[in-house]
Amino acid sequence: MAKTQSDPTTSRLTFGRRLREERNRAGMTLEDLADRSGITWSYIAQVEVGRRNISVDNMHRLAEGVGVALRDLL
Amino acid sequence: MAKTQSDPTTSRLTFGRRLREERNRAGMTLEDLADRSGITWSYIAQVEVGRRNISVDNMHRLAEGVGVALRDLL
Repeated sequence: MAKTQSDPTTSRLTFGRRLREERNRAGMTLEDLADRSGITWSYIAQVEVGRRNISVDNMHRLAEGVGVALRDLL
Repeated sequence: MAKTQSDPTTSRLTFGRRLREERNRAGMTLEDLADRSGITWSYIAQVEVGRRNISVDNMHRLAEGVGVALRDLL
């Protein structure tokens, strides 16, 4: 039942790009989003460029921080 | 800029419930999905009940394993 898999980092790159779009649309700095989400700005910066394999709980916090549903960042 | 946050585990519970629905719909056992995704069946079982704070790369692998877009599991 094995199956060819796509690059698993595809979703983290989409999430990072969409997060940055929504953060900018909301006029928020990295520090603003850090305050709202409880996640450090340096970690968020790395997430936005796909450098971190972020967990679902932290994805939830960031989606909420920018005011969109998590599904809309994927 | 602080803001009241919802329980961050909301999304992992949704993901787990939806993953199980799609796995069952596809007629796959935990072992079938383990073979397709490269993730152990015991870890998948815990994800399905929201016991694991799963990473985005592994969410991608599981979504692909059941044949749906990640956004449709959230």
